[in-house]
Amino acid sequence: MEGLYLAIGSGALALLFVIFLANRVLKAEEGTELMQEIGAAIQEGANAFLKREYSVLAIFVATVFAILLALGLSRDEQNPETAYAYVIGALASGLTGFVGMRIAVKSNMRTAAAARDGLNKALRIAFSSGGVMGMSVVGIGILGSAILWIIFEDPTIVAGFSFGASSIALFARVGGGIYTKAADVGGDLAGKVEAGIPEDDPRNAAVIADNVGDNVGDVAGMGADLFESYVGSIIATLALASTAAFYGGEIVSDGPAFVLPFLIGAVGIVASIVGTFLVRTGETTNIGSLLWSLRRGIFAAGLVGLAGSFGAIWWLLESQNSLGMTAVWNVSGAVGVGMGAGVIIGIGTEYYTSYEYGPTKGIAARTATGPATVIITGFATGMLSTIIPMLVIVAAVIGANELAGLYGIAIAAVGMLSTLGITLATDAYGPVADNAGAIAEQAGLGPEVRERTDALDSLGNTTAASGKGFAIGSAVLTSLALMAAYAKAVGLDSINLLEVSTLVGLLLGALMPFVFSALTMEAVGRAAQDMVEEVRRQFKEIPGLREGKPGVKAEYAKCVEISTNGALREMIVPGLLAVVVPITVGLIPFLGAEAVGGLLIGAIASGSLLAITMANSGGAWDNAKKYVEAGAHGGKGTSNHEAAVVGDTVGDPFKDTSGPSLNILIKLMSIVSLVFASTFSID
Amino acid sequence: MEGLYLAIGSGALALLFVIFLANRVLKAEEGTELMQEIGAAIQEGANAFLKREYSVLAIFVATVFAILLALGLSRDEQNPETAYAYVIGALASGLTGFVGMRIAVKSNMRTAAAARDGLNKALRIAFSSGGVMGMSVVGIGILGSAILWIIFEDPTIVAGFSFGASSIALFARVGGGIYTKAADVGGDLAGKVEAGIPEDDPRNAAVIADNVGDNVGDVAGMGADLFESYVGSIIATLALASTAAFYGGEIVSDGPAFVLPFLIGAVGIVASIVGTFLVRTGETTNIGSLLWSLRRGIFAAGLVGLAGSFGAIWWLLESQNSLGMTAVWNVSGAVGVGMGAGVIIGIGTEYYTSYEYGPTKGIAARTATGPATVIITGFATGMLSTIIPMLVIVAAVIGANELAGLYGIAIAAVGMLSTLGITLATDAYGPVADNAGAIAEQAGLGPEVRERTDALDSLGNTTAASGKGFAIGSAVLTSLALMAAYAKAVGLDSINLLEVSTLVGLLLGALMPFVFSALTMEAVGRAAQDMVEEVRRQFKEIPGLREGKPGVKAEYAKCVEISTNGALREMIVPGLLAVVVPITVGLIPFLGAEAVGGLLIGAIASGSLLAITMANSGGAWDNAKKYVEAGAHGGKGTSNHEAAVVGDTVGDPFKDTSGPSLNILIKLMSIVSLVFASTFSID
Repeated sequence: MEGLYLAIGSGALALLFVIFLANRVLKAEEGTELMQEIGAAIQEGANAFLKREYSVLAIFVATVFAILLALGLSRDEQNPETAYAYVIGALASGLTGFVGMRIAVKSNMRTAAAARDGLNKALRIAFSSGGVMGMSVVGIGILGSAILWIIFEDPTIVAGFSFGASSIALFARVGGGIYTKAADVGGDLAGKVEAGIPEDDPRNAAVIADNVGDNVGDVAGMGADLFESYVGSIIATLALASTAAFYGGEIVSDGPAFVLPFLIGAVGIVASIVGTFLVRTGETTNIGSLLWSLRRGIFAAGLVGLAGSFGAIWWLLESQNSLGMTAVWNVSGAVGVGMGAGVIIGIGTEYYTSYEYGPTKGIAARTATGPATVIITGFATGMLSTIIPMLVIVAAVIGANELAGLYGIAIAAVGMLSTLGITLATDAYGPVADNAGAIAEQAGLGPEVRERTDALDSLGNTTAASGKGFAIGSAVLTSLALMAAYAKAVGLDSINLLEVSTLVGLLLGALMPFVFSALTMEAVGRAAQDMVEEVRRQFKEIPGLREGKPGVKAEYAKCVEISTNGALREMIVPGLLAVVVPITVGLIPFLGAEAVGGLLIGAIASGSLLAITMANSGGAWDNAKKYVEAGAHGGKGTSNHEAAVVGDTVGDPFKDTSGPSLNILIKLMSIVSLVFASTFSID
Repeated sequence: MEGLYLAIGSGALALLFVIFLANRVLKAEEGTELMQEIGAAIQEGANAFLKREYSVLAIFVATVFAILLALGLSRDEQNPETAYAYVIGALASGLTGFVGMRIAVKSNMRTAAAARDGLNKALRIAFSSGGVMGMSVVGIGILGSAILWIIFEDPTIVAGFSFGASSIALFARVGGGIYTKAADVGGDLAGKVEAGIPEDDPRNAAVIADNVGDNVGDVAGMGADLFESYVGSIIATLALASTAAFYGGEIVSDGPAFVLPFLIGAVGIVASIVGTFLVRTGETTNIGSLLWSLRRGIFAAGLVGLAGSFGAIWWLLESQNSLGMTAVWNVSGAVGVGMGAGVIIGIGTEYYTSYEYGPTKGIAARTATGPATVIITGFATGMLSTIIPMLVIVAAVIGANELAGLYGIAIAAVGMLSTLGITLATDAYGPVADNAGAIAEQAGLGPEVRERTDALDSLGNTTAASGKGFAIGSAVLTSLALMAAYAKAVGLDSINLLEVSTLVGLLLGALMPFVFSALTMEAVGRAAQDMVEEVRRQFKEIPGLREGKPGVKAEYAKCVEISTNGALREMIVPGLLAVVVPITVGLIPFLGAEAVGGLLIGAIASGSLLAITMANSGGAWDNAKKYVEAGAHGGKGTSNHEAAVVGDTVGDPFKDTSGPSLNILIKLMSIVSLVFASTFSID
């Protein structure tokens, strides 16, 4: 049991570190009265969204709980405890999102205030806020799954925890994605394009909703997405433990095959904390040196994590259980494969989306022939960018499987996600920096402040792109592991594509991401349209708003409400689809359990490719615009810049709504299948 | 043998009908001297392209021939005759393309000339030209495969014929797609956008290349694509005949399971000829009545084909071989399923791409908020439009399989393609009408002539969109049948996704279409850039050209050469990929034959979805622009129109290069695997 206690200890350590980081943020200076006022409006908007979201979520969670409980009580094969684990998973993920976002919205004005004194001070605040999100995810994730494991000793029950987390992720990532882009696109169209006022201008009624959206989508949404991956990878490992070479023959909570994922997670938490202390910067706003300040932390965490994992694996397998060095090397290899895959995917993503490199520069060059060629080249770039991550995933799957079978694939996913505490921090830090810049703009702070927040923001954009790549990569590996766990749970020996029912399942599965993406993209369009009309209405009906008369204020709360309503309304159909389709396919006797296997793999294959294409073309368009704005191809105010803006706007729902939502789709479909496996038809 | 002789007779009949239609075209009036001059330039350009293309092709074909021959002579499992069948298939498809295009480029000026007299006269010429293409495909297709079948009595040898056809299709569809869009996009950017001269203006040096491109891409390319599907579906049926309920236990050329596809083809040829005689119109240029004039022919052919197939199947199975009415009903059902699927896919495509309906109108409405929202909505529309065809294909696969197993799936594909003689005619007619309009414009014919050619062109656009849907649908069904034939040939009992190697194959297969699309899209971009530079150069260096000084002419041939070079250069990498990847996966021992099965299905799944998305979003953007040009949302000259033009330009390579090229990719990968099956590693 020592391994499991260590995991619980590491979870507690992570939460203590959350308190330490949160305190660092909260004791920082809040800035001028105006800054505090803007900050308060963002907090209020974020709270309003969370409150509404959580009340809809409560209904959803209660319904699923009732179904799971009814199933559990009426069928021998299904445990009623899964229903409780589900609720606990939902609460855990919800709590994580709440903590992360609460600190994020308190950090933005403090980061702006700190930016008046210096770059490093601002970075420390913003990064601490990201760290709160990252450490909450790993801390609560490992605590929840380890405690449930110790209590129930049953992977199918702990899968309920993962399913609960998935439900929250659906709302947070899909709803959050719609929220943030409705506000962003709608606000830009009505403000920047129609009214001709700058971005982040306080006269734009959507500006607070936009700021709230950054937190909703990129902090809470990203956090819930990765919480799901983190927990999912651990649970897949538990479910596949009986296929491990050193499985003891019975499910016992402290069997080494079961303890292993927790132990790797515990090492990753310590490694992430070590890495976090290494993040600091000088006062040059050079992006390269800033990037290095974050990388130093990530790389250190990776090295500590890898070495520590090897030690921990040796301790567990060889020192405690005398399972031999082959097992130690094999499992350590799988961890290394997962970690390596995460790093290469991150680098590949950066190559395709950063304007330091050819692809994004190429898109910028196409601005000379207008928006159409920008779109064509950007989309082609996104499709080409699937090669590296897909080959890396394939190589990781082969490598991990050679080393330790299906169990190895799950362990590779755990390894990839083990240092999530710091990698997520570098992501979740971005929106805080972005918001800080917006507050600096709205509060009229000096140009040197804006320059610092811009540098931090731009760093955030770079890390956001590779963070999305990492999120997709980990989602694919986790889904594959969950799919294998599903096949194991339902007792499938084969998922045979020469069976027409399985082939049909696969084709339907491949269809799902296309439909899901279309629905989420249209959702953004509709919600953004509502936003445009509200901003227009306020310009028309509030005297003096457009002219910026002192004391006249836009009704920000109205726009927050519109984004909130849009997000919650528009996510119903895609959300239901993700849950209902796998269950339906599983229940139809002609299709059944094997067809569900096809369905999952079809969805994972086309979903991952589409997600990478959309995320990376979106990221590349964004940065091509930034490249032009930095002076290339004529810079701001030229028709080239206009063309680049079109690309960026198209990329917004690609990279921030539809692309990331696909991570949720493939994981949710997999976990739903795993949880409902016992009800499916078998030939 | 009667059934096979009937098939050969029907093939001969089709070729006689080709001569009849060609004569109808050739004896029509050629128009004014200027028109003939423009027509001659287009013919010359087309010949230049064909000549260059065929010389590169010859090298490709010779290389593959040598490999196949060497394999056949060195390995017992492989027949050297496959190599000869390969060359014959390549020659047959090449001949088809040559005939179709030769008549098409002679029809355009004649159609323009006939349009001076009336709409019906012009329609008859243009449609006759389309009929030449359609009837050549089915005539040569059925003749070639039937004769080879009679001679060799071996499906694996006849598969060589299909492989030969695929090689031509690769060059014609992928190369042709790059050619046509390089000329179109490059010409528009340099002419319409930069120089501000109208489309089809003779001062634009790319105008002839653009006209040639319509024939190269939409006549020869589409023809070769469907020739491949037509032949591929017959060959898949032959290869799967041993799985039919009424397989006699040995491969004999006149076994009913083998004769059946030829007989259905023969009935379809007769039905198509009947239908062709029903195509005529009055003098109202209303699109609805024009569409009906074509539909009458297609529907009549469908009904005659369905009833005739039932009769023929009854004759073959019950009357000749006393196999019982159950077999007759089952096989007729499979034919009906295939035909029905083709019709529904066509209607679904029309719903999503015609501006008579909501989706395209919705895209047009988004022009109010600029090009970005046009792109987002169009892309979402394209993705949503995958639902109908995918569900139809799934239903067809299930239905055909229930009726007659895997053999039924192949028969459904044969049924869907049986009336290709007329359905392809309605497609291949489009570019002729388009060219006629361009000639009318360049030759300065009166507005009533232009109105008629515009009406015909607009009809052609509508049929082109549903034709593309049909091409994809038939490609998917044919590829699935070929994949099943491959599994049968290599002796696979299962393609098990729980084997990591198969899973890896599937993921790599799903990746292929993304890479292929990206490469073809970037190819268009690069070739179009070369074109822009050439047009610019001519404006600069040829005195009086820009001003339209009488007697000053652009150097059209230079632009034809640029498009030709671009097409041939840019198709090398994607073309090699399609051939090399399946063979490599098959040869690697760790992957091998089963992984190739996964590869094929992965490619078919993601390729079909991507192809439909790209073709339909492209079609919808095209028609949204036309809707605006017809006066909606302010009409021409507004910023709304500009936004719609951006959508149309993005859609060009989507719908005319990358989307259709994916048909080739999935069929070529399948046929390559089938032909090389005997060399693959098996566990």
